[in-house]
Amino acid sequence: MARALQLAEKGRHSTQPNPRVGCVIVRDGVIVGEGFHERAGEPHAEVHALRMAGDKARGADVFVTLEPCSHFGRTPPCADGLIAAGVRKVWAAMQDPNPEVAGKGLERLRAAGIEVESGLMHAQAQALNRGFVMRMTRGRPFVTLKLAASLDGRTAMANGESQWITSEAARADVHRLRAEAGAVLTSSATVLADDPELTVRHVETSRQPDRIVLDPRGRVSASAKVWNDGARRILLTAQSQSQSQLAKPAGVEVAQLDRYGEYFSMSAAMSELGRLKINEVLVECGPTLAGLLLQAEVVDELVLYLAPSLLGDAARPLARLPNLEKLSQRIALQWRDVRAVGPDLRLTAVPAATV
Amino acid sequence: MARALQLAEKGRHSTQPNPRVGCVIVRDGVIVGEGFHERAGEPHAEVHALRMAGDKARGADVFVTLEPCSHFGRTPPCADGLIAAGVRKVWAAMQDPNPEVAGKGLERLRAAGIEVESGLMHAQAQALNRGFVMRMTRGRPFVTLKLAASLDGRTAMANGESQWITSEAARADVHRLRAEAGAVLTSSATVLADDPELTVRHVETSRQPDRIVLDPRGRVSASAKVWNDGARRILLTAQSQSQSQLAKPAGVEVAQLDRYGEYFSMSAAMSELGRLKINEVLVECGPTLAGLLLQAEVVDELVLYLAPSLLGDAARPLARLPNLEKLSQRIALQWRDVRAVGPDLRLTAVPAATV
Ligand SMILES: [Zn+2]
Ligand SMILES: [Zn+2]
Repeated sequence: MARALQLAEKGRHSTQPNPRVGCVIVRDGVIVGEGFHERAGEPHAEVHALRMAGDKARGADVFVTLEPCSHFGRTPPCADGLIAAGVRKVWAAMQDPNPEVAGKGLERLRAAGIEVESGLMHAQAQALNRGFVMRMTRGRPFVTLKLAASLDGRTAMANGESQWITSEAARADVHRLRAEAGAVLTSSATVLADDPELTVRHVETSRQPDRIVLDPRGRVSASAKVWNDGARRILLTAQSQSQSQLAKPAGVEVAQLDRYGEYFSMSAAMSELGRLKINEVLVECGPTLAGLLLQAEVVDELVLYLAPSLLGDAARPLARLPNLEKLSQRIALQWRDVRAVGPDLRLTAVPAATV
Repeated sequence: MARALQLAEKGRHSTQPNPRVGCVIVRDGVIVGEGFHERAGEPHAEVHALRMAGDKARGADVFVTLEPCSHFGRTPPCADGLIAAGVRKVWAAMQDPNPEVAGKGLERLRAAGIEVESGLMHAQAQALNRGFVMRMTRGRPFVTLKLAASLDGRTAMANGESQWITSEAARADVHRLRAEAGAVLTSSATVLADDPELTVRHVETSRQPDRIVLDPRGRVSASAKVWNDGARRILLTAQSQSQSQLAKPAGVEVAQLDRYGEYFSMSAAMSELGRLKINEVLVECGPTLAGLLLQAEVVDELVLYLAPSLLGDAARPLARLPNLEKLSQRIALQWRDVRAVGPDLRLTAVPAATV
């Protein structure tokens, strides 16, 4: 199963909106077939592995990181393929997270007389597809909020000067996060202020990430660099804006959402991204959007690059949290991981476990 | 020498203003004597070790963490004691950091025909006495600034609410820092706001730390808890104040210093503490004094307890740095250490190495 997870990992940058899946077929202690899912529309992991194994699949053990599918999608169901090949036993690391089909693939295998066991290396399989699992179970992507600050929690000087607060190594690490998430989200404010590309450079990837901009007031121009080459480009804007003055850039999907106060409801915005089949999203934004996401409790992971410097109390804050007045209202997280990244630290926090 | 350093460590909480020193005497591969300096006025490490070794010191090797003294202080010079005992060789981890006597003890031993070697485990010996070394070489204590904040760099809510931002484990760890530094410094602002005791509880120590309050305007009352039991209690105040309305608490040393702007010159204040024989000081204070110390570049170590929470941009800052306007003026440090302390992180930074 460890090998199957390793194979699945090869599809990390490319499978969305599909899950990352790996499959290994073992007969008499020898690997006779293996494969992984590479991108939507192409064969599933099981198909690749069965093709490679050929006749040797008969009586073999199959290790697959996700329950084999039982429905006709763009490809025929893998459960049927495994049955036809005459395998002896199927080990699935986890069930399909989609509550409507969970267990049906394994059921189908069992009904055909194949031994089935689920749950081997379950945690690793869940982590590998945390975005797909989140979308299937909660209808929204897994949200990683990336922030970079000085040790006194400042992101830029009062005059806006913000280059080089964190190191080149930290900035390269962000490119890795972009590639792994497969989609990067930012706000119109950041696009207007910095005109970032939000592409993956510095690290290898088989595709550029999707680019998503939250633009409630339709302020982002069609020539913004964020619309340059990328997989999908999505503009989330308010009803009133999309109909009128907004210059719709070529190739950009426009999704409409009601405004909620000055902005969008963050939970509605994330549900909209779920509907658009975004599994995971890396958010790179300023203090306003960061604060809105944190207060709406839709941040699943916070990655903070912390530079060993102080910028002082006049410098710009990490997150605006205008409704936070009492200590009891604070945003409570828990530390998950700490790494040195060049001269900076990378601190990862996740929501505090609810009691 | 490792054993000698271990012994010296036993005096960590009690030797100031003297250095921490350990001594081991070895003859024919067997330890025949050992000792450490416990507190000022009591015998030096070498005296304890020589007493224990007795006749066996003749022809033995002596490992001592600091160059043996050659001058008459409150006790006769250890170099003479070693010569009289007829030892064969003296290994010193480091020379005396006081530039006026450095090397003289070793010289005296050499002149008496004893073999001498200096520098074994030098870095560890330096670290053990970083306060004594700082005072001897630069005339001021080694300054550790302790801060506690949320991950967005906030120390308290706008309304002043600040209890429980960091965990009980982090607060207990601070008591360890207090015991190790041997002296705790705070500002009149903190005394007036919180009336802290700044004593060592939660961890074992042979003495309570010295307590030092910077009070340029003479606002701290004689009944403040900070004056409760402690080794030495020092009030640093401005000339004009000490003569007039200040109620001098019993047993408190009052040192006078000219004001510099609204406060003291931090480098002058630290020199005054050096003159008062303070080797190491742990600073626990609010954002104003923290900012002044950082800008004066007298912080030798910054210890930041970082809670996994956000308090928002209206909350209070970590350090006030009013003169910092451009990114190029930022306070540049480097990370030295990271530890988990209960649910919080303890991050240690030191001044960035000058190029
Ligand atoms: Zn399938
Ligand atoms: Zn001595």
